[in-house]
Amino acid sequence: MLGLNYSFMMAETIGQKGITGRKLESFRVRALEALEEIKRKRLPGLAFTELPWQDVSPVREAAKKLKELDYFLLLGIGGSALGPKCILEALSPFHNLRADKGPKVFIYENVDPSTLQSIIACLDIKRTGVNVISKSGGTSETMASFMILHEMMEKALGGEARNRFVLTTDPEKGDLRKLAAEGMGSLAIPPGVGGRYSVLSPVGLLMAEVIGVDSRELLAGAKEAHGKCMAGEFWENPAIVAATLFYVMQRDEGRKIDVLIPYADRLKSFSEWFCQLWSESLGKQGRGLTPYPSVGTTDQHSQVQLWMEGPEDKIITFLRVEDYGADFIIPDVFSRYEGMSFLRGQSLAGLIKAEEEATELALAKAGRPNMSITIPGIDAYHLGQLFYFFELVTVLTGHFLDVNPFDQPSVEEGKKLTFGLMGKKGFEDKKREVVQARDKKSQFTA
Amino acid sequence: MLGLNYSFMMAETIGQKGITGRKLESFRVRALEALEEIKRKRLPGLAFTELPWQDVSPVREAAKKLKELDYFLLLGIGGSALGPKCILEALSPFHNLRADKGPKVFIYENVDPSTLQSIIACLDIKRTGVNVISKSGGTSETMASFMILHEMMEKALGGEARNRFVLTTDPEKGDLRKLAAEGMGSLAIPPGVGGRYSVLSPVGLLMAEVIGVDSRELLAGAKEAHGKCMAGEFWENPAIVAATLFYVMQRDEGRKIDVLIPYADRLKSFSEWFCQLWSESLGKQGRGLTPYPSVGTTDQHSQVQLWMEGPEDKIITFLRVEDYGADFIIPDVFSRYEGMSFLRGQSLAGLIKAEEEATELALAKAGRPNMSITIPGIDAYHLGQLFYFFELVTVLTGHFLDVNPFDQPSVEEGKKLTFGLMGKKGFEDKKREVVQARDKKSQFTA
Repeated sequence: MLGLNYSFMMAETIGQKGITGRKLESFRVRALEALEEIKRKRLPGLAFTELPWQDVSPVREAAKKLKELDYFLLLGIGGSALGPKCILEALSPFHNLRADKGPKVFIYENVDPSTLQSIIACLDIKRTGVNVISKSGGTSETMASFMILHEMMEKALGGEARNRFVLTTDPEKGDLRKLAAEGMGSLAIPPGVGGRYSVLSPVGLLMAEVIGVDSRELLAGAKEAHGKCMAGEFWENPAIVAATLFYVMQRDEGRKIDVLIPYADRLKSFSEWFCQLWSESLGKQGRGLTPYPSVGTTDQHSQVQLWMEGPEDKIITFLRVEDYGADFIIPDVFSRYEGMSFLRGQSLAGLIKAEEEATELALAKAGRPNMSITIPGIDAYHLGQLFYFFELVTVLTGHFLDVNPFDQPSVEEGKKLTFGLMGKKGFEDKKREVVQARDKKSQFTA
Repeated sequence: MLGLNYSFMMAETIGQKGITGRKLESFRVRALEALEEIKRKRLPGLAFTELPWQDVSPVREAAKKLKELDYFLLLGIGGSALGPKCILEALSPFHNLRADKGPKVFIYENVDPSTLQSIIACLDIKRTGVNVISKSGGTSETMASFMILHEMMEKALGGEARNRFVLTTDPEKGDLRKLAAEGMGSLAIPPGVGGRYSVLSPVGLLMAEVIGVDSRELLAGAKEAHGKCMAGEFWENPAIVAATLFYVMQRDEGRKIDVLIPYADRLKSFSEWFCQLWSESLGKQGRGLTPYPSVGTTDQHSQVQLWMEGPEDKIITFLRVEDYGADFIIPDVFSRYEGMSFLRGQSLAGLIKAEEEATELALAKAGRPNMSITIPGIDAYHLGQLFYFFELVTVLTGHFLDVNPFDQPSVEEGKKLTFGLMGKKGFEDKKREVVQARDKKSQFTA
């Protein structure tokens, strides 16, 4: 199980910039009540807590066919892309450059025409399977690329084209589901599982299976996290303690930016996945916490100056890896130079871990609160734990902030204005609004 | 030249959450004085303003040899990696999957052993050229990978190995320069050009030339930006206006998070480059602004909820592209479904641009200040402009904040503690400190 060390968040360790154990303790009853609400599913959107026990056979069945092809293209955006991308990059790094790794994988998570052109230049459309992911079945960006790809595939393959699509969507509602009913392959995202909590549903599991990862391992890890984090304890429960710290630090210390810095390139996407989860779940009603994506050691040469000496508005959460599954010993070359001689005989894994530990301490010494999560290695089991753990921390923190962590009401206005510009029926007034704004906007330019 | 539209920052357009023209005007004298200081190079570190006029022949010479090989590996971290990475991803997207694009390129910007293992599995060491970049010539992370690669290459190539390295470093000081004096190929980063302001030096230009981009185009764009932004004007000068807005918005409105959201996948790395520049340059003495990396439309499904309805602590800067250099028409398929029918006949470029415009307006309507920068297309010329523009905006904003935008004093402590852990001579006390901290740290875990 992942471990949480929050010593450098505590007044007992870092002094007045920390939180006292007594203050945390005073939060215990409220926190355990929140956990009870979650366990009893008194909030909507908690169906994600049941995902670890799902039947993965439909996903494995679909993957089996897709793996016979040479290319796998995923169309999705936001929660429909970040989870699968994270699984791909964590569990099969440099996937497309390794010949032995099954179908080459592309994720198109935008409507940038230049990217689509590049992707199409890289694949043979006749040997491609496409996974279209949209919970609602009507996300404009995803529908646009789906329509383009479908026409291309039909031109290349005729009637066979329809067998190359897997539509991952709501089991009953939406346009994608209707297309599935007409015969296209499909997978279901269970009702009550929102896009950003869907990585352990077929949204992420299909990617896992296609790249040769046993999706049951992801779920097994999530189950362990469930067991540990749903237990009715406070001090032994890493999800409750972490959520309480995030909440209290923003309420009492104004620390409203939460950096997640994994010390592993393969987990950079995990940090981005976390950012979407945290932003959309908690940023509402004038409240909310701004997540910040990062990766170590790289960002020591980018962000650490700001964290050490900039405004006191951040908490840094380190994500440590015990075993990188590879290592290199730094050889005894150029040792006549002092900047290099001390490195000889050391290992790269030793260096990255030393830098992580040193950065934690340097921050603590500067009175900058930070905590760390440790996983034994980067594999499906521990990635499943991380997903589940952070989802639960997000829901708990939302509960403390008194916001609904499952909606995203404020993205609607932008969608409506886009509909207006694109000439969708019923949105004519929105188009007028944009055009009028253009006049106003011509005022201030340089 | 790139254009700045700041209408949605102004009270005249968005009401009380904006800044009045009068307030901006009151800043004019101070701003022009700052510009004058910069023009007269009264600050250290301003040598980057001379880079557009450099002689690129040493870079082109070095690139010519590297292009004869099949693989190009860059070793660097922070400012020594982000600029070249940005050039690679903006100007040669999906580079390694396109057969016609010259050497395959890898950037190793960390000490993660798993990544190095993956990279080495992808390349043929006998057909590889290596560019080692470190301004000081002694960055530990870069030295570690350099030592490993050098030994590997020597084993594979014998004495020929030394001809495969290009060391990009200070022209006089440091270990890398000494190695160059012993016969390894090298390029010089001019004195007074700091790592994060070095992209238009050989640091970035060599990458450009290796991937087939004329580095003179980058410099030509930068020259135009110099001409426009060094002119002694206020309202017509996009760098001065932008810096003033960033400064005043944080001082008077508490908006201390600056999001940069390019609407182009190829500029995602540009946003990351900007983040390093902004963080290290401005985050000091308790002051500073937190930059935030983003990409549109993708992050509309990730961050926009938070920007619209979360804490009022952000400014959003859009980066718009007029011509994507590619386009797709959305075909007339599935038009029996309402969620798709309005898209038929539209273009992807039209859709991404509509979404960008709609998001600007939606934010403005919610009283969330934002501005936009427009470039005609993503090419070396306009990328050069963007680099130079943002460097100048950073220096100006630092001047207003009264911090030195060229140092990064607070990264030293972490380095020293790492030296201690790695057994470097003279840092024994630092090692003791880390070991003692381990005891303290065992207190709070879950």
